[in-house]
Amino acid sequence: MQKVIIAVFLSFSLAAAAAAQETRVIELKKPQLTKGKAVMTALNRRQSVRWFDKRELDLQTLSNLMWAATGVNREDGRRTNPTAMNRQEIDVYACLKDGAYLYNPQKHILEQVSAGDCRVLGAPVTLAIVAKEELPNNYHYTDAGYVSQNIYLFAAGMGLATVARGSMPDGLQDTLRIKKGYKIILNHPVGYPNTDK
Amino acid sequence: MQKVIIAVFLSFSLAAAAAAQETRVIELKKPQLTKGKAVMTALNRRQSVRWFDKRELDLQTLSNLMWAATGVNREDGRRTNPTAMNRQEIDVYACLKDGAYLYNPQKHILEQVSAGDCRVLGAPVTLAIVAKEELPNNYHYTDAGYVSQNIYLFAAGMGLATVARGSMPDGLQDTLRIKKGYKIILNHPVGYPNTDK
Repeated sequence: MQKVIIAVFLSFSLAAAAAAQETRVIELKKPQLTKGKAVMTALNRRQSVRWFDKRELDLQTLSNLMWAATGVNREDGRRTNPTAMNRQEIDVYACLKDGAYLYNPQKHILEQVSAGDCRVLGAPVTLAIVAKEELPNNYHYTDAGYVSQNIYLFAAGMGLATVARGSMPDGLQDTLRIKKGYKIILNHPVGYPNTDK
Repeated sequence: MQKVIIAVFLSFSLAAAAAAQETRVIELKKPQLTKGKAVMTALNRRQSVRWFDKRELDLQTLSNLMWAATGVNREDGRRTNPTAMNRQEIDVYACLKDGAYLYNPQKHILEQVSAGDCRVLGAPVTLAIVAKEELPNNYHYTDAGYVSQNIYLFAAGMGLATVARGSMPDGLQDTLRIKKGYKIILNHPVGYPNTDK
């Protein structure tokens, strides 16, 4: 009887753990809307940096980053990045130490999609820019560029380092649990610059 | 004899006028590298605006705009916008009241290409983002997006209005004198917002 109770307890615990795993959510902080260097200074500092310090981004910085990339900046749900015909076909994922997350711009939260590690180049965070559908005239590629430049200029204006990369780490599609027909356009490690390099 | 002299004089004058026309150059002012709102504020104000005031941009503002779009921001000639494999395959043209100009980022000048008027939506300036070559993986579309977001965030941070447009005005290829194999990806009217709308 005791064995049965333990087995039942264990299976409940595992199920609960699995459910928690699937639904793990990071509530992001409100973006700090007056932060960063002047836009001309950010443009002047815009560059591709491939060497990162191991230092983690704190929750406020991660929150600002996700919002900058593709956050809602108007009451009608429109975003920091334009999309062709306002299709909003671009999703942004965040690869963190404990797994991969999909950013939900409307709720400004990160929803875990897997426990895999898809970070690249030793950066504490890697974003992935994914197109949910193919638009005419290759506009989904242009739309990915908008998000990527948001990340670049945010980083330049906040003293962070980043680079847009077209080559993907092994297994990224699986780790992000990309659905059929979705396409990863770019990945973007983000962190503090490694000043030893 | 007098007729011949007049004819010769006239043809010289026309040739000189044509040469002057072809080589007209606007020397831009140095970009103001500390201007504009904080980068997070610019991201918060990023939007597509389609109604413009008739007010012209002054030379300093035009200079800042061209540099923001695709200016040189490092000694090695790299720019405010990244390009795949640093191919720098994106050109930016400016449609002004008196004609169309190609921006030369290395010299930070505008070089007139025609006297045609390719401005749209009543804006005092319209930029055109042109890909000089087709890159693998449609990267030239992503690269056009980088320039476009530079324009959007510059505008948002400087109190200007802009919108990226995929539909082109009639004859734009001819007015810009686009060479064979070149492709116009987007056009971008820029001006002060029309607050009556």
